Amino acid sequence: MAVYKLELLRKAMIEKEISALVIPSGDPHFGEYIQAHYKCVEWLSGFNGSAGTIAVTLKDAALWTDSRFFVQAEAQLSGSGIELMKMKIPGTEGIDTWIKKRLKRGERVGVVKELLSLSDFSMLQQDLMPLELVEIDDIFQTVWKSRPVVESYTINVLDDVYAGESVSTKHARVVAEIGEEGDFLYIISSCDDIAWLFNIRGTDIEFNPVPLAYAALTRSSMTLFIKNGTLSDELNLHLKKEKVRVMDYDEFDTFISTYPAASIRIASKDKISLNKYNISLSGGASFSADTKRGGVIANLKAIKNETEISGFRKAMILDGVAWVKYLRFIEERIKESGNPPGEWEAAAKIALLRAESDLYMGESFAPIVAFGANAALPHYEPSEAVHSIIGIDNFLLTDTGAQYICGTTDTTRTIAIGEITEEQKRDYTLVLSGMINLAMARFPSGTRGAQLDILARGPVFSAAKMYMHGTGHGVGHYLCVHEGPQSIRMEENPVVLKPGMITSDEPAIYEEGRYGIRCENLILCKEWCKNKFATFYEFETLTLVPFDTKPIIRDLFGKERITWLNEYHRRVFRELSPYLKNDDREWLKLKTADID
Amino acid sequence: MAVYKLELLRKAMIEKEISALVIPSGDPHFGEYIQAHYKCVEWLSGFNGSAGTIAVTLKDAALWTDSRFFVQAEAQLSGSGIELMKMKIPGTEGIDTWIKKRLKRGERVGVVKELLSLSDFSMLQQDLMPLELVEIDDIFQTVWKSRPVVESYTINVLDDVYAGESVSTKHARVVAEIGEEGDFLYIISSCDDIAWLFNIRGTDIEFNPVPLAYAALTRSSMTLFIKNGTLSDELNLHLKKEKVRVMDYDEFDTFISTYPAASIRIASKDKISLNKYNISLSGGASFSADTKRGGVIANLKAIKNETEISGFRKAMILDGVAWVKYLRFIEERIKESGNPPGEWEAAAKIALLRAESDLYMGESFAPIVAFGANAALPHYEPSEAVHSIIGIDNFLLTDTGAQYICGTTDTTRTIAIGEITEEQKRDYTLVLSGMINLAMARFPSGTRGAQLDILARGPVFSAAKMYMHGTGHGVGHYLCVHEGPQSIRMEENPVVLKPGMITSDEPAIYEEGRYGIRCENLILCKEWCKNKFATFYEFETLTLVPFDTKPIIRDLFGKERITWLNEYHRRVFRELSPYLKNDDREWLKLKTADID
Repeated sequence: MAVYKLELLRKAMIEKEISALVIPSGDPHFGEYIQAHYKCVEWLSGFNGSAGTIAVTLKDAALWTDSRFFVQAEAQLSGSGIELMKMKIPGTEGIDTWIKKRLKRGERVGVVKELLSLSDFSMLQQDLMPLELVEIDDIFQTVWKSRPVVESYTINVLDDVYAGESVSTKHARVVAEIGEEGDFLYIISSCDDIAWLFNIRGTDIEFNPVPLAYAALTRSSMTLFIKNGTLSDELNLHLKKEKVRVMDYDEFDTFISTYPAASIRIASKDKISLNKYNISLSGGASFSADTKRGGVIANLKAIKNETEISGFRKAMILDGVAWVKYLRFIEERIKESGNPPGEWEAAAKIALLRAESDLYMGESFAPIVAFGANAALPHYEPSEAVHSIIGIDNFLLTDTGAQYICGTTDTTRTIAIGEITEEQKRDYTLVLSGMINLAMARFPSGTRGAQLDILARGPVFSAAKMYMHGTGHGVGHYLCVHEGPQSIRMEENPVVLKPGMITSDEPAIYEEGRYGIRCENLILCKEWCKNKFATFYEFETLTLVPFDTKPIIRDLFGKERITWLNEYHRRVFRELSPYLKNDDREWLKLKTADID
Repeated sequence: MAVYKLELLRKAMIEKEISALVIPSGDPHFGEYIQAHYKCVEWLSGFNGSAGTIAVTLKDAALWTDSRFFVQAEAQLSGSGIELMKMKIPGTEGIDTWIKKRLKRGERVGVVKELLSLSDFSMLQQDLMPLELVEIDDIFQTVWKSRPVVESYTINVLDDVYAGESVSTKHARVVAEIGEEGDFLYIISSCDDIAWLFNIRGTDIEFNPVPLAYAALTRSSMTLFIKNGTLSDELNLHLKKEKVRVMDYDEFDTFISTYPAASIRIASKDKISLNKYNISLSGGASFSADTKRGGVIANLKAIKNETEISGFRKAMILDGVAWVKYLRFIEERIKESGNPPGEWEAAAKIALLRAESDLYMGESFAPIVAFGANAALPHYEPSEAVHSIIGIDNFLLTDTGAQYICGTTDTTRTIAIGEITEEQKRDYTLVLSGMINLAMARFPSGTRGAQLDILARGPVFSAAKMYMHGTGHGVGHYLCVHEGPQSIRMEENPVVLKPGMITSDEPAIYEEGRYGIRCENLILCKEWCKNKFATFYEFETLTLVPFDTKPIIRDLFGKERITWLNEYHRRVFRELSPYLKNDDREWLKLKTADID
């Protein structure tokens, strides 16, 4: 099937006079999740991981993905005629080298218009030299017969009671951050930046509660470009009140090209497509890059205000209650001999339990419920068709999150089912130790995530093991569960951690073919104290879900972490118990009992 | 006095038609220590810290230095007419801003020829725009009446038995690292790179056992430029054997300018002066920067070979023996009522004890022996004229190091004299904890120092304290005690730690006006194990000197670190005791006894 599609695509490539095509797995808004319409990588290859780039020449094809998806990609690409290229593994060719080996000087490499950001396009262009990289019209419109259309739905207003700040004050702060002296037009493509700025949410994208939209700001005006039919009366009122001009999504290109040439255009190079960049300059304006990593809006959005933080705390209680019921459900179903749930049933169960809350808006990412060897795949997702039944004598890893109107959650718990080995107990103890070490960190202002990463990773290293993903990603407020610009990972990221930033804390160990362990809480950076030396920060753990204490090897875990865990568990019980019925409360009492 | 010198200088500046002069504290070889001839900053200001830059306009003058020297600079600049500018403190103007505020467009800023590296010159030039930055002839030759001349001494050969690699194989490795395809001339100004490459050592510079020299390499030849009269017969033989051409130091400029223009010139931008760069291109050649941080030679030199590592281990024994005698001397002199030693006497004592070894070549930096509040100045140096008598009820900090022909040492121990407070005990415990945490680290290949820094710094942060200097610097092999390119500090440094690198591990706490604590060992990076996840590294502690265990608060210190310390102390005793006489051995037995 995939081979046949490749042939169709190659015919179209010949017509467009390109000898190679690069197919990124994104859409024109550069978010993590995309509509079915843009899933060209999946359509062509069968690979449905969230990160993968394909390069096709007239003879060969290959897909680049990272370690999270190696096993999955290997299975899904089998027989597709598309070779798997394991990123960051020594010896793996880059996409540029791979293409350059196959093309002759003078041949052209194409990429579908709007799908590469200005920075990615420039980088690829540089890397591919002397080959020419060109933007082409959407080649998939002709070769992909039953391609889904782009869908759009009514946009919702996020009440001030949840947002905590009006659109106009956000606008003023953005303008101040931009810091431009003259007239400017600030161009925004990224939907979550737009959702934050305008206090709106949408349902156009799975998991990310954002509408498909563009926006353009000047010092004194805001224009929002949304799809036809998505403007409700409520939204209309809200935007009028905030003096936001509304225009059609499809008018954006004309607007940015015809805006007075005297005003400079500003955008973040990694959040605007080459095409939009070119259009914005076609009227004769000059360009000034927003050089803040992720852009100025992402930097403001990352720092949650008091209302958002209270919302997160509330979301954690709602989520914790669902988790307690879920964990008890798993335990009881395991006890019922002969009736263990499947991973898919378990994933559906926790979603149902969350949905009991009126504030629940949906899942924040595809649920991961993975037993035994499945958990060794960091981004394994059970499906109704393909999943395992939860077995015995191994770990069950559950990594799920929810969107509540007041906040977003992302939690991983690993629990031992039956008997586990000493190695498994040790690894569990080390992973949980790492998570707690990071949660306990205290550090001065100016600290970057890469400096703290070792706190979580160190215990894992001490067993000569490692995990290939980051330790922590930013989390949006009823927005994207993976949000920039901060991160806690091995790679240097110049963004410093600041009070109000919410980040995940999720060390792990994966033993391929055997088991996987990950523990994850969300942590809030806040001021701890200020003295002659510095202003010091610390983390507040937000997530409220008990950990399995059975596998913990006490001596290895150590006194400091035992104290932390006991205090955490007491807090979990204190905060959740008022919302639990007798049975659940008794169960939680047991699970959160002190260890020594 | 300083004011009078400033006036002399300003007259000379007017003659040279410059409105500002920048005076860096370096020489044309960009090392840490310089001959008296180049101590223009000290001559002008009285400030004798090792890092300080002065800017002088026709009206004002200021000196920029870092936190290590704030207190010292404040005292030494008093009444000099030179303002102290505290670097990295919020609100402190940069040198560029300071000058720009004082000069008019069209006015020129001067810097003495050869004293700024190509990269520093370019940066300052950029920062000072639109003012013009120009190189001028050495203005101090006229204004500094009794200026010392540049001295040079006979150069010694470092026997293969200590170096462990011949000049020719080093040359081959350097050429391979340079990786240039065509003909090239690689230009070297830094004396320690030259000393390493040619297996030579000198005594031209205090503390750094290097000769003043330049060198130039091609793929197949090496030329060494040394001062008249420094070539011994032994060196002559050695260089002949290694096919090194010898030329006069003063011929270097002509050589690099008249070398065939067809060959490109290569140098590390931070290790070549703007002047040398210009001279090297004056014959029409093109330039290709050596982009390895610190240059390719620094990167090769940082990785010690087996012979060098064995030499370090031997040096640590020699040094440990001297330390034991020193610490016992301090203890006994304190016990003798009414006769405590002064800091200066103590500093002289440890040097004398080290000199008992035939392999001792001198101190590796100015000794720091600091009692009480003096120890709060991270780079306090007692002098014969100005020092304190070691008192009671506070810490004595000793940070000294030696050059042995087989390796370089750098050790800090802090010992409690009399009674100390609970806060002091806690701080001591935290500093030592941090030092041990880093020493115990295990990490995969590819790890940078900035990722590990928090291990040493974290315990200090936990008390809401911090130290402003790095945690670890590279150490040369019978070369500079501060050697690049690796470091362990908060600031990002892309250089990854590799087996064979030797780095210091020296967290600290400074309480201004009260006390200072620093614990420092040298640690060697080496392979720990290799598996499907990664190749993992660990540190071997090289330094062999007992720690004061009295101030340690056991509960805070924790089991893991108690175990580490007991094992370390057993090793110290095991390795040093064969070289100690009865009394010293008994004393060490007591000092290295297990704690629990």
